[in-house]
Amino acid sequence: MLEINGISISKGITLAPAYCLAEPDLSFDKVKITHVDSEIDRLKEAMAKTKLDLIAIRDAAMYKFGEEKAEIFSAHLLILEDPEIFSAIEAKINEKMNAESALDEVCIMYSCMFESMDNDYMKERAADIRDVCKRILAHLLHVELPDYSRISREVIIVAEDLTPSMTAQLDKQFVRGFVTDIGGRTSHSAILARAMGIPAIVGTKNASKNITNGSPLIIDGLKGKVIVNATEDVQARYRASSKELEKDNELLKKYITLPSISADGHIVEIAGNIGNPNDVDAIIANGGDGIGLFRTEFLFMDRMELPTEEEQFDAYKTVLSKMDGKPTVVRTLDIGGDKELPYLKLPAEINPFLGYRAIRLCLDQQSIFRTQLRALLRASMYGNLKIMFPMIATLDEFRRAKAILLEEKQKLLDGGALVNDQIEIGMMVEIPSAAVIADLFAQEADFLSIGTNDLIQYTLAADRMNEKISYLYQPYHPAVLRLIKMVIDAAHNHGKWVGMCGEMAGDEVAIPILLALGLDEFSMSSASILKTRGQISKLNKDQLNDQLEHILQLKTSIEVELYVKKYFLNLK
Amino acid sequence: MLEINGISISKGITLAPAYCLAEPDLSFDKVKITHVDSEIDRLKEAMAKTKLDLIAIRDAAMYKFGEEKAEIFSAHLLILEDPEIFSAIEAKINEKMNAESALDEVCIMYSCMFESMDNDYMKERAADIRDVCKRILAHLLHVELPDYSRISREVIIVAEDLTPSMTAQLDKQFVRGFVTDIGGRTSHSAILARAMGIPAIVGTKNASKNITNGSPLIIDGLKGKVIVNATEDVQARYRASSKELEKDNELLKKYITLPSISADGHIVEIAGNIGNPNDVDAIIANGGDGIGLFRTEFLFMDRMELPTEEEQFDAYKTVLSKMDGKPTVVRTLDIGGDKELPYLKLPAEINPFLGYRAIRLCLDQQSIFRTQLRALLRASMYGNLKIMFPMIATLDEFRRAKAILLEEKQKLLDGGALVNDQIEIGMMVEIPSAAVIADLFAQEADFLSIGTNDLIQYTLAADRMNEKISYLYQPYHPAVLRLIKMVIDAAHNHGKWVGMCGEMAGDEVAIPILLALGLDEFSMSSASILKTRGQISKLNKDQLNDQLEHILQLKTSIEVELYVKKYFLNLK
Repeated sequence: MLEINGISISKGITLAPAYCLAEPDLSFDKVKITHVDSEIDRLKEAMAKTKLDLIAIRDAAMYKFGEEKAEIFSAHLLILEDPEIFSAIEAKINEKMNAESALDEVCIMYSCMFESMDNDYMKERAADIRDVCKRILAHLLHVELPDYSRISREVIIVAEDLTPSMTAQLDKQFVRGFVTDIGGRTSHSAILARAMGIPAIVGTKNASKNITNGSPLIIDGLKGKVIVNATEDVQARYRASSKELEKDNELLKKYITLPSISADGHIVEIAGNIGNPNDVDAIIANGGDGIGLFRTEFLFMDRMELPTEEEQFDAYKTVLSKMDGKPTVVRTLDIGGDKELPYLKLPAEINPFLGYRAIRLCLDQQSIFRTQLRALLRASMYGNLKIMFPMIATLDEFRRAKAILLEEKQKLLDGGALVNDQIEIGMMVEIPSAAVIADLFAQEADFLSIGTNDLIQYTLAADRMNEKISYLYQPYHPAVLRLIKMVIDAAHNHGKWVGMCGEMAGDEVAIPILLALGLDEFSMSSASILKTRGQISKLNKDQLNDQLEHILQLKTSIEVELYVKKYFLNLK
Repeated sequence: MLEINGISISKGITLAPAYCLAEPDLSFDKVKITHVDSEIDRLKEAMAKTKLDLIAIRDAAMYKFGEEKAEIFSAHLLILEDPEIFSAIEAKINEKMNAESALDEVCIMYSCMFESMDNDYMKERAADIRDVCKRILAHLLHVELPDYSRISREVIIVAEDLTPSMTAQLDKQFVRGFVTDIGGRTSHSAILARAMGIPAIVGTKNASKNITNGSPLIIDGLKGKVIVNATEDVQARYRASSKELEKDNELLKKYITLPSISADGHIVEIAGNIGNPNDVDAIIANGGDGIGLFRTEFLFMDRMELPTEEEQFDAYKTVLSKMDGKPTVVRTLDIGGDKELPYLKLPAEINPFLGYRAIRLCLDQQSIFRTQLRALLRASMYGNLKIMFPMIATLDEFRRAKAILLEEKQKLLDGGALVNDQIEIGMMVEIPSAAVIADLFAQEADFLSIGTNDLIQYTLAADRMNEKISYLYQPYHPAVLRLIKMVIDAAHNHGKWVGMCGEMAGDEVAIPILLALGLDEFSMSSASILKTRGQISKLNKDQLNDQLEHILQLKTSIEVELYVKKYFLNLK
C-alpha cells in the first residue's frame, strides 16, 4: 500500500483501477547485426502488427468520435505503407544496423525534413511520422502503448499531465477520476475534472512513475491523496466513506430550491461558470441563480475558421432562453495566452500570459469583436444579458470597447433590429492595474467581475500553470485580499455590484472572507453551487465583519488559511 | 529623404552611414541541371571562397576578441572541410540537383541529425553547420553577408533587432547609434544604447527594410526619428544641433560636483545602475552619489559554469573599493526570465517572466545563493554595502532570504572573518503583491527599491518586450503611480528609505512626480545622472506637492504625461 500526496481538485472519493497514460520506456541499444534477413523480417512483422493496430483504432475512432477523428489514423496507415520510408530503413539494415536504430534514424531524417518545410500542413505531418514510427518501435521492443480511445471499463486516469488533445480522446463515460504529476488548481486537468464533477489529484510530482497500469487506486479528495494497492480493510473503509459523501450530496439537494442567503439574512447571488450551451443544464439542475461567466471561446476553438454571426447568435440565444430571465453574464472573446486559434495565425510569444490576447486582440482585430457583439446584441431579446470585457488594464481600453459595443447597437437599431435596452456593460477585474483603479472603472462600468485565477497570477507574477513555482499561487495572500477589498469597496461606493468568477468564489476558505467583504455574486462550477449555498446559509455576515479587520491584518497566506479554518470551518 | 519614426532611447543627435545587419535574401529555385561537372565546380568555388572568409574572420576575431571567440571559426573551418558533407552534396548534384538545393537538403539533414542528439554539445553543432552552409549559399548566389566584427569606420547599426549575442560581436568603438525595428524602452538594444551613452531609435517597425547599407543616416533622439538620405541643408542643420547638444552637455558638467538638491533645499540621492565593475568609472565621472543597483548577473553569464566565491568576492570588492564609502546597493542574482544560464539547465518555461527566476531560484538552489552572499559579506569590509533581494512576492520569501543571509554572516563571524556590521538588507519592489503590502515589508526590510521595469509589466500584465502590446508599457498609468505612492508612504511611515532603479527614475516626466511623492534615491544609467541633477535643482518640491493631488486624480497615462509636460517641462 502506497500513499501519494497532491492537490485535491474536488472533495470526492473514488475507487477504480489505474489506467496509465504514461509513455512506456522505448529505449534500445544501437548494435551491429549479423543476420540481415531475419532483422528485415522482424521489421516487417512489427509493421504488420502496427497495421492491425491502426485499423482497429481507426474503426473505434470512427464509431466513437466520427469520421474526422478517424481520418488521422487513415493518414497514419498511408505513412506506414509508404514504400520510400520502408526502403530507407531496409537500406540501413542492409548495412548491418539493427531494426530499431534503422527505424529511428529514418524517422528522424524524414520528420526533420517535413518539419523544415515552409508549409504548415507538411510541418504537421512530421508528428504523424513520429507517431507511426513509435508504434513500430513499440512492436519491435514488445512494449504495449497506451490507447486512450479504447478504454471500456471504469478507470482512474494516471498521467504526467493531461493535455487538451489527450482529454479530447478520452471516453468520459468510463473515467472516474484523474491523478497527474504536474498541474495546480487552475490547470487544464483541474478545470476538466471540475467540469465533469469527478475527483482529481494533481501536482503529485511523480505518481505516474509509481503507479503501474491496472493497480487498484483510491482517490481521497478530502485529504488530497492517492492510495495505491490499498488493503481490503482500507478499501472497505473508503467504500463506506464514499457512500457517506453520496448521502451528504443527497442532503445538499434541498438547497436547489432555497434562496442564497446567509444565516442573518444577507442575500447574495450564487451563479455558475459555463463553457458552452450544454453546461447550462447542470447550472439549472443545481439551482444556480444565474450565470456569472459564460466563456465564449468554445465557439472559436477546434475549428478551421471564425464562427459566423449566425452561429454565435444561435449559441447565445440558446443559453439566454434556457436561463429564462435569470442574469447571464457573457464574457467577450478571451483568446490568446494559453488558448490559441491556429487559423488566426497569431505570432508565437515569449510570454503569452503577458501578451496579445482577449480585449487587446479584439480592439486590434475589430471585425472579430464586432461580429461577436452583434450576435450578442441580437440575442439579448431572449433573456437577461450582461456583457463583460476580459483583460482590461486601462480606462481607455474599457472606453473603446464600450464605444464599439454602443456603435454596433446603434447600427442594429438603425437597421430596425430589436435590442434589449437593459443590457449591463461590465468588465473583468483580473489585472492588478484594474483592481488598483477600480474606483475609476466603477464610475463607467455597470458591474465588475473579479477573475481571481488571472488576478492572483499577475499580482504575484507567477504563472499558475508552472509547477516549479506553484507555491506562489496564493488566493489568500494579503495583497490579493486587499485588492479584492479595493474592488468591492470602489464598486459599492458608486452603487455598482461586484461578482467573482475565478475558482476562489467556490473555495470554502475564501467564502467567509468574500461574504464579509460584501461580494454580491459568487460564480463557480455547477458542482460547487449547492455546497456554497449550504455554507453561506450557515454563516453570519455581521459576525464575520467583526473578524474581517483581524483577517486583513494577517501577514501571510498561510496565516489567513489557518485562521479561517480554525474559526469558521472548525478544521485543524 | 525619408523620415522614420520610433521610440527614442537617448536624446542625442548623431550622423553616420547605415550599417545594415539585416539578413540578405538567400532564396533560390530548385531546378534540374544538365551539366553536373560545372555545377560541382560552382560548389567547389563557393566553398573555396567561404574558406578564405572564415580564415579572415577567424584572424580578425583573434586580434579583437581573443582566442576563445576565434575558436568558433576554427570549428567552422573543420565543418567546411568535412569530406562526408561534401560527398553528400556531390551525390545529390550527380542526381541532377542544382548546387543550392543539394547544399540546402544536406544542410537540413545534418543539422537535424545533430539537433536530435541527446548531447548538448552536439546539439549546438547544428547551428554551426547551418552557419557554414549559409556562407557557401551566399557565395553560390553572389550575395554578401553582413559581418559585424569587421566594421572599421563610424556607423549607425540598422537591424530588425539586436540580440545579446550580436551585440557581443560589435566593435563598439565604431558604433555611433542604433536603429531597430522592434523593441521598446527596456529592450536589450535600449539598455545597451543607454549603457554606451549613444543615441538609438527602437520600435521603428520597418526601418531595416527601408534603409540600404551605406545610406547616410541622421538619428534625431529629441524627436524620436531617423532621417535617411537627408539633403545637404538638413545635414548641416543637424550638425549644428549636434554641436549645441554637446555644448549643453558641457554645461551640465558643473553638476558633477554639486549636491543633489531641489530648488527649495530637499536633498535626494542620485545614484547609478551598473552591470559590471567597469561601469563604476562612468558613475564616478558623472558624480553619482552612489550605486542604486549593481546587477550581479554579468558574473554568471557568458561562461560554462558558476563563478567561484573568490571570483565574486574580487568583483564586489573592486566595486566597493572604487565607490570609496558611497552607498552601493547590490542586487542578488536575478537569473531566469529573459536571462538564461545554459549550465544551470533550467527547464524551458511557457511564461518565463512569470516563472522560476531570481529569489525563487535562489531559495530553491541555495548553494548558489549562499556562495554569492558569502562573497558579498566578505567584501562588505571594503565599502558601504547594501544588499537587496529581487522578485520578492511574499513576506515569507523575504524572511527566508534574510535568514539565510544572517546565517552565512554568523558562520563567517564564527570562522573569524570580518564582516561589516552596518550592512542594510532591503528588497526590490517589482511585483504588485509586494507594492500592495509594502507596509508589511517596511517593518522588516531596511530599505525598499522600486524596480519599475518589472512592476509596470506585471501591474499591466503586459510583456515589456512584446511589440504588439507596447502601448501597455505605461509608467504614468494611475495604478502605477498609486502603487509607487503606497510604497513610499509605507516605507516612510516605518522610517525606511525608498529608492527606484527602473528606467522611470531617470525619466524627465516622472521625476517631478517622484520628487513630490518623496522618493529618496533615484538610480539610473550614468548618462542620465547630470541631467537629472540639473532638472531636480530647478524643481520646487513644496510647490509640486500642491499639484500632486491633482496629478493623482488623473485617469489615464496620457493625461498625466500631458499635464506634467505642460506645467513642469514647458513642452507642448
